[in-house]
Amino acid sequence: MSRKEIVFRIATRADLPSVVRLLADDDLGSQRERYEDPLPESYYAAFEQIDIDPNHELIVAELNGEVIGTLHLMFLPSISFQGGLRAQIESVRVDTQHQSQGIGGEMIKWTIERARQRGAHIVQLTTHRSRQDVHRFYERLGFVGTHLGMKLNLI
Amino acid sequence: MSRKEIVFRIATRADLPSVVRLLADDDLGSQRERYEDPLPESYYAAFEQIDIDPNHELIVAELNGEVIGTLHLMFLPSISFQGGLRAQIESVRVDTQHQSQGIGGEMIKWTIERARQRGAHIVQLTTHRSRQDVHRFYERLGFVGTHLGMKLNLI
Repeated sequence: MSRKEIVFRIATRADLPSVVRLLADDDLGSQRERYEDPLPESYYAAFEQIDIDPNHELIVAELNGEVIGTLHLMFLPSISFQGGLRAQIESVRVDTQHQSQGIGGEMIKWTIERARQRGAHIVQLTTHRSRQDVHRFYERLGFVGTHLGMKLNLI
Repeated sequence: MSRKEIVFRIATRADLPSVVRLLADDDLGSQRERYEDPLPESYYAAFEQIDIDPNHELIVAELNGEVIGTLHLMFLPSISFQGGLRAQIESVRVDTQHQSQGIGGEMIKWTIERARQRGAHIVQLTTHRSRQDVHRFYERLGFVGTHLGMKLNLI
């Protein structure tokens, strides 16, 4: 596999089934996603909101015309840090058949550079506490696990 | 002090100096904020972005006409969870003179209810790992510290 063939770009509506396939393809995702044909309309409704909002970018990694990775990059205006812009990464996935090939690292590095160009002063993300392999992955990219990520499910 | 006098509402531009005063009034905040008169323009620029975006709400707690608390509530559209809406809380502060009186708890409960009414399926936040008192505060409100919050400073 040649690294040169990987393209990172903003997802289009046509990519949505591939993105949902990636989101559904892990233990947690398989319980909470519905990768069906056609996709449930709620996915398209969310895509439209993301697509029209310049502060949200759904990113895909494409290899030889196939979507093999995704993440959601968001820019969060904030009063803190003298009105500084935050970047946040959510929903990171690489196709299981293409893992451990450095693709995730390339995708995150590309995203960090994009956040820097946009003027963000920080990139933040959360990852499950049990996933120490993932913590090391992000530490190698420069992230520091200073915070506890707390969640409250409403439904 | 009567609890009935506390009002939670969306901040106006006129509240911004009070919000910045609260953000600046702790160890970390004092290093990274500039609470000056007039406020640096970057604060107003960020406020305008937040104010025009229906997915962002800068909240203040007002007691007898004085701003004594603040937080930033944001709604994040997402493809994951079948296109489910996330709510996120950032930049939570209560005036040091009004702490330990339950005001923070009331403010978070009010915010959770607001997120629920908007249809968010989750409320998420991060807090510094060293602040175990803060972890217990959020746990009492139903939050679970399942995640590691990782940050990469770009400047």
